[in-house]
Amino acid sequence: MTDFFREIAAAAAFDTAKPTKADLFLGDRLFVGLNCFEPGQAQRTHTHAGADKFYFVVSGRAWMTVGDETREVEAGSVVWAPADVPHSVAEALERTVLLVAIAPPPR
Amino acid sequence: MTDFFREIAAAAAFDTAKPTKADLFLGDRLFVGLNCFEPGQAQRTHTHAGADKFYFVVSGRAWMTVGDETREVEAGSVVWAPADVPHSVAEALERTVLLVAIAPPPR
Repeated sequence: MTDFFREIAAAAAFDTAKPTKADLFLGDRLFVGLNCFEPGQAQRTHTHAGADKFYFVVSGRAWMTVGDETREVEAGSVVWAPADVPHSVAEALERTVLLVAIAPPPR
Repeated sequence: MTDFFREIAAAAAFDTAKPTKADLFLGDRLFVGLNCFEPGQAQRTHTHAGADKFYFVVSGRAWMTVGDETREVEAGSVVWAPADVPHSVAEALERTVLLVAIAPPPR
């Protein structure tokens, strides 16, 4: 076990009933975790008041929306959801792993 | 052009003379960018006072150190460098792309 090093492959988990979340690291100023989707699963439109967030697509393929923009994203895409801008995962098109970071962390 | 969506492949750049950095997104509370290394390149030990940081290894392989821990990391590794803890990229063993996030952003 380590305080500083984690592997996505060991932390990712999937549930056909709903998307799953996994915490990776939590600091006073920054949270890092995973959102994992089976094909067809989604994350409803939401907004983080006063918190900047981004997603990095580790694997898979999905439709994502930020503000008025909707794009098909895949491994290597970075999606910026700044404070107070609505965003969603409209639909995962494959089994998809999103790395997600939020600053400051959710309470 | 988009305010919210970027692709790592379009942003990564390499220089045999030194590691390169690329900014992806900058908010009031969070910065996201890339650090790109040719084999043999390194990032010296440094500390961010009052700022939490993590690296995600997008591609490649490297020796990285945080505090007293040194590990070989590769695509899929997440490396947490919390505020005030020294960290470094001891050596890139292959051409390596690190996604990096810091909260709050560097001034």
